[in-house]
Amino acid sequence: MNQDYIIPNEWSIIEEGFHKDRVKSSESLFSIGNGAMGQRANFEEDYSGPSFQGSYIAGVYYPDKTRVGWWKNGYPNYFAKVLNAPNWIGLSVSLNGEVLDLNSCKKVVDFKRELNMKEGWLSRSFIAFLNNGLEVKVESKRFLSLTHDEIGAIQYQITPLNQTAQLELSSYIDAGITNEDTNWEDKFWETLSVEHFENQAFIVSKTNKTEFHTCTYNSTQFQVNGQKTNLPASVNKEAHKISLNYSYTIAQNSTLSIIKFGGYVSDRAHHRNDLKHIAKQNIEIANTLQFTGLLEKQVQAWSKIWEMADITISGDVKAQQGIRFNIFQLNQTYLGKDASLNIGPKGFTGEKYGGSTYWDTEAYCIPFYMATKNDEVAKNLLYYRYKHLEKAIENAQKLGFKNGAALYPMVTMNGEECHNEWEITFEEIHRNGAIAFAIYNYTRYTNDYSYLAQAGIEVLIGIARFWEQRVNFSTEKNKFVMLGVTGPNEYENNINNNWYTNYLAKWCLEYTLEQLDKIELEYPNNYKNVVAKTHLLENELKQWKTVAENMYFPFSEEKGVYLQQDGFLDKELVTVDQLPTSERPINQKWSWDKILRSPYIKQADVLQGFYFFEDHFTTEELEKHYNFYEPFTVHESSLSPCVHSILAAKLDKMEQAYTFYLRTSRLDLDDYNHEVHEGLHITSMAGTWMSIVEGFGGMRVKNNQLHFDPKIPKEWEAYSFKVNFRNAIVKVEVNHYEPKISIEGNQNIDVVVNGKKQNSFTELVSASKK
Amino acid sequence: MNQDYIIPNEWSIIEEGFHKDRVKSSESLFSIGNGAMGQRANFEEDYSGPSFQGSYIAGVYYPDKTRVGWWKNGYPNYFAKVLNAPNWIGLSVSLNGEVLDLNSCKKVVDFKRELNMKEGWLSRSFIAFLNNGLEVKVESKRFLSLTHDEIGAIQYQITPLNQTAQLELSSYIDAGITNEDTNWEDKFWETLSVEHFENQAFIVSKTNKTEFHTCTYNSTQFQVNGQKTNLPASVNKEAHKISLNYSYTIAQNSTLSIIKFGGYVSDRAHHRNDLKHIAKQNIEIANTLQFTGLLEKQVQAWSKIWEMADITISGDVKAQQGIRFNIFQLNQTYLGKDASLNIGPKGFTGEKYGGSTYWDTEAYCIPFYMATKNDEVAKNLLYYRYKHLEKAIENAQKLGFKNGAALYPMVTMNGEECHNEWEITFEEIHRNGAIAFAIYNYTRYTNDYSYLAQAGIEVLIGIARFWEQRVNFSTEKNKFVMLGVTGPNEYENNINNNWYTNYLAKWCLEYTLEQLDKIELEYPNNYKNVVAKTHLLENELKQWKTVAENMYFPFSEEKGVYLQQDGFLDKELVTVDQLPTSERPINQKWSWDKILRSPYIKQADVLQGFYFFEDHFTTEELEKHYNFYEPFTVHESSLSPCVHSILAAKLDKMEQAYTFYLRTSRLDLDDYNHEVHEGLHITSMAGTWMSIVEGFGGMRVKNNQLHFDPKIPKEWEAYSFKVNFRNAIVKVEVNHYEPKISIEGNQNIDVVVNGKKQNSFTELVSASKK
Repeated sequence: MNQDYIIPNEWSIIEEGFHKDRVKSSESLFSIGNGAMGQRANFEEDYSGPSFQGSYIAGVYYPDKTRVGWWKNGYPNYFAKVLNAPNWIGLSVSLNGEVLDLNSCKKVVDFKRELNMKEGWLSRSFIAFLNNGLEVKVESKRFLSLTHDEIGAIQYQITPLNQTAQLELSSYIDAGITNEDTNWEDKFWETLSVEHFENQAFIVSKTNKTEFHTCTYNSTQFQVNGQKTNLPASVNKEAHKISLNYSYTIAQNSTLSIIKFGGYVSDRAHHRNDLKHIAKQNIEIANTLQFTGLLEKQVQAWSKIWEMADITISGDVKAQQGIRFNIFQLNQTYLGKDASLNIGPKGFTGEKYGGSTYWDTEAYCIPFYMATKNDEVAKNLLYYRYKHLEKAIENAQKLGFKNGAALYPMVTMNGEECHNEWEITFEEIHRNGAIAFAIYNYTRYTNDYSYLAQAGIEVLIGIARFWEQRVNFSTEKNKFVMLGVTGPNEYENNINNNWYTNYLAKWCLEYTLEQLDKIELEYPNNYKNVVAKTHLLENELKQWKTVAENMYFPFSEEKGVYLQQDGFLDKELVTVDQLPTSERPINQKWSWDKILRSPYIKQADVLQGFYFFEDHFTTEELEKHYNFYEPFTVHESSLSPCVHSILAAKLDKMEQAYTFYLRTSRLDLDDYNHEVHEGLHITSMAGTWMSIVEGFGGMRVKNNQLHFDPKIPKEWEAYSFKVNFRNAIVKVEVNHYEPKISIEGNQNIDVVVNGKKQNSFTELVSASKK
Repeated sequence: MNQDYIIPNEWSIIEEGFHKDRVKSSESLFSIGNGAMGQRANFEEDYSGPSFQGSYIAGVYYPDKTRVGWWKNGYPNYFAKVLNAPNWIGLSVSLNGEVLDLNSCKKVVDFKRELNMKEGWLSRSFIAFLNNGLEVKVESKRFLSLTHDEIGAIQYQITPLNQTAQLELSSYIDAGITNEDTNWEDKFWETLSVEHFENQAFIVSKTNKTEFHTCTYNSTQFQVNGQKTNLPASVNKEAHKISLNYSYTIAQNSTLSIIKFGGYVSDRAHHRNDLKHIAKQNIEIANTLQFTGLLEKQVQAWSKIWEMADITISGDVKAQQGIRFNIFQLNQTYLGKDASLNIGPKGFTGEKYGGSTYWDTEAYCIPFYMATKNDEVAKNLLYYRYKHLEKAIENAQKLGFKNGAALYPMVTMNGEECHNEWEITFEEIHRNGAIAFAIYNYTRYTNDYSYLAQAGIEVLIGIARFWEQRVNFSTEKNKFVMLGVTGPNEYENNINNNWYTNYLAKWCLEYTLEQLDKIELEYPNNYKNVVAKTHLLENELKQWKTVAENMYFPFSEEKGVYLQQDGFLDKELVTVDQLPTSERPINQKWSWDKILRSPYIKQADVLQGFYFFEDHFTTEELEKHYNFYEPFTVHESSLSPCVHSILAAKLDKMEQAYTFYLRTSRLDLDDYNHEVHEGLHITSMAGTWMSIVEGFGGMRVKNNQLHFDPKIPKEWEAYSFKVNFRNAIVKVEVNHYEPKISIEGNQNIDVVVNGKKQNSFTELVSASKK
């Protein structure tokens, strides 16, 4: 554990005391978002110390020119950057002639931040001792509305404690912002208009190249000791900034509240010409509801989310705080309302990694959203890829594939690849398999075949075609081999016959063939359409079968395990526990060649295959592979501990499962990787959820039945979660004595607990009594 | 062949007719240099069309900030850039109010360029029809003096043909130059002073970061119809430029000659405070010798070079022109006078690839310089690496090696690595072996053991330590393996057990052990010193022996060949002749992953080993490997055809040998790779020389004897070359009837022709009569 300043609390993230060196980390941890926009927990008032300013609008990106060491054919021309958007929260506060700035004032006491996850708001309070002798108390509360997702609200309260204070306030919008992450220091935004109307300010700007038009707006109101007060504004317009300036004398112990509403209106949702008009409407809505009304709706909206998504853990506050933080951040990032959005690895909390969509979505996020929202949300995530199919086909063409073969991008914003390291972009192709697997997973979980029959089958055909073209026949091995790939373990590059990738490819081919058979039989019209649209030939199907049946899998007879890749056993097989801690993490201590020739595994690779295809192997096989590979695994990816936690739980290695769980659930809160200041690891948070539900809870869908095999770490008293399964809400409560399972809604589903099929709700309650 | 505008000529490179689209290519092809400085054949007068301006000072470089896609541990922080230096040749010519500019004038006729390789000068002449009606003839001649290597000279003659011309001339130095190749558009130079004295101009500037101080100077004189004429100068100084401006009315058919001397004086050779003073001295020397005197010395100096280095070919003008072009450019680039210099891949003809030193020097250039200059030159090249040993040890340390293991950089200017693609920088480690091989090669050729005993042995120890640490023991194979390397065939990355690298490593270990034994016995003091200095332990030697004896080499029993790497036979083994030409060159048509998983070979890899270690294998083995690998070779490196030409000649495949010879010798003249505008391929030019001397001539040093096994392509009538071997000048003349070999100087050497040892000079002459 690398930091521990977050105060354990079941429902809130709390920081007490002001420490300048924590500012950037806390800006990440206390981030807020509502799926449509989000922002780091930057201070409203000026802060002259180190800070990472960030406010983001979902789906608004910039195609930054790439930067490469040496250009390789096929590299994409741009890398889509998450875009810092104009700042609407800013308040420059001057009191008796001194700018309020926690970095330069004399002293800060009683500093406290709280991110209230139950209700969805961020608060901050402190007393600042200014250099001019004034003592002032500030309390702010801020949230981005879930119910009105273009509206954010701030209540900022100033109380001078020891004398009257002459306030000079500038409430501004600043569109002259920059990105921390740019390749060439490009300017990303162009300001189109700077306007105001009474206490309302508007800046319309557009992103360069992508031409997303956005109106950033805010309005500013005042209360004195709870009474609405009108203050006259003077306006200051600059090229990229508008400030509404106010003066007011605050009597000692009087409280001036500044109520600020603001946010973004973009042409992703509205006509370009209407943006300012819609922004005004938003201000009207906010004025009608007022801060308290909006907040009330916020609390209700979050309550509805928690009703379904909450996981309780008793007896372990840190574990409870961890899982709620993960669930909260996932919901802040993506709510599944907009099928053109996806789940970026840093959500709205930072810029690193750019792009919005990785294979994380299919491998980690879909199970979470599928179980905690209605099916539509997961389906939207599947349609997202369907809509990108044409671009995936173009992407494959750039790499020399033909005839409709599709390679989905490693990183994308609009379907085009935007990453460029050859070993990832061109070779980490297992991502294609995860996209097919998600279709299977969705269909298995929801029993909804409509996506597959209407759209998914096209995706599967494109992917199958890719695999068939990507392998080649080795006369030496008399098998099909797949050369030059990078597996999920990115600490190996350009390897041959990565078992996981080969296995996924074989499975994709077989699954696609099966689904084609099924669709031909059960949805003959769809079949006819898709064959016509994709120009599918009988010969192709034969070839897919041939490849699937003759795929090569590296296997060691001696060790009795599938090998991660050809030649894995040639490595110097020293396990991780024999590495001095001074050499860890290896990705910071070792040069890349040393990492590559070592046996160390960044994240589950062979074991990712065992996780996806659990049913294909016996528990003994799983155990053998887990025991062989886990000791070489350094877990230097945020996506690693969760899968290992799930597998360890399945193998009754509860201590390991618990350790991995803590690591995944508090990865950011405790800053294991020394990088939380760059933003949070949003997508791996879904893995944390899985490590409880699939790991400890043992939830699986098999033969159209929902199975549970609940276990509980000895450190906990009890835990509970709910999943939405085919319109039933299944609640699982586990303690050391009596696991309880109850169902609401559709009772027409099969639930199997500890291997025993339950026959009624009543029986379920105490089904797995030990 | 991709261009053919160069007129075949035995001694000159000639271009006739002005074509704007050839300007940049010709700027490369007509480059001049004298080992200390060099420049592209840019026009003296203004040219507003596309041009690539370049003038370079040997050893003066800039450590440009690197550019990477994704930073990897161990990457160097900079990439040394070849540095465009201030322009001293510039002449702005205005005639009757119109600027002379071949891009904008009405018509250009009788345009001719000649690079006279015999005498070492560049000339250009043309008649320009200006838009104002003036017809003017211009003749310029330019050279960089070999005998006074800080002095360049230009004679620029203007003759108005149809009317009197009012000339406004500005003879300038421009230090406000930029590089074509910069990563971040940095400014590389800072101007320190801009001065003049009478008709002399001086700009002192220094390079940023590296702080190379340089005085760029020139002086301008005039003759009218051959009579010296003084013209008054007016001076115009700008921040980075100085112009001396002259006016003169040239009568119709009168000729004004502008004589300009200029060049660079740098603190690499002089004290920083003396630069301007030395520049003035250079002008005095030039004034004393005058243009004709300097030119006379130039002709003599080149005559002396050709006396030793010339290769004659009769019956094939293009082949003759090709080989002389190669020999000429090599001598323009490096003359072996300065042990801190080396041979950059583009010499003084362009900026691409940066750095100055690649393994090309050891593998290709040393044999050329060894045979055509005295031993001192090759020895200087060896000492260059000796001086960088400490930095090679640091470089290895950065990658996790210890105890004095040395990894020489892939690209360097001062011993530090400055390339950063992980697959090259960290993994193309065979370069280390080439550096050891050059020590062996030098010692074998010269019989001079002094370098090895006094210095080279330390280099060998550092390299041996590297190999011992770089391998690991595979319990699976019960052998030492080398994982994660890139061989000379850079179309394979991060491969295991590259046969060439493993073989070189084994050889380095054994050779180092042998030399240590020899030095212990014959140079006991040196032995004591080196053991003390390197802390060499007996155990290390044992371990080197163990590794060498147990190195793994991939071999196919079925094919009877060593495999380029593990798994090579898993590839889809389609030979190059079956590739459609539309797919070639694959490095421009295919994405990197497709190249990597293909069997196609960029340049000799296994065959490079067979070339280096010819004696270790039978001719039958060579033939088997040549026949297996050559058909997969795309020769997309300039270094590929020469090695194949040599091996083909050895195998009596004379047609192939000849084809490869033509391709290597006219690579730039005929622009095979469509890139001559970027500069010439200097280092591969040494390979061209080898393909005649070692290929057709069959020259080898074996058992302290000089062997020849001369062959001649059917296209040629005869060819001849000379080599300097242990103070004897051996001249080889070969025709279809009667190969002749003669010796001058030390006759105390053994010469073996066609396997028969020759006993006297007389016998040698007709020794190998067929």
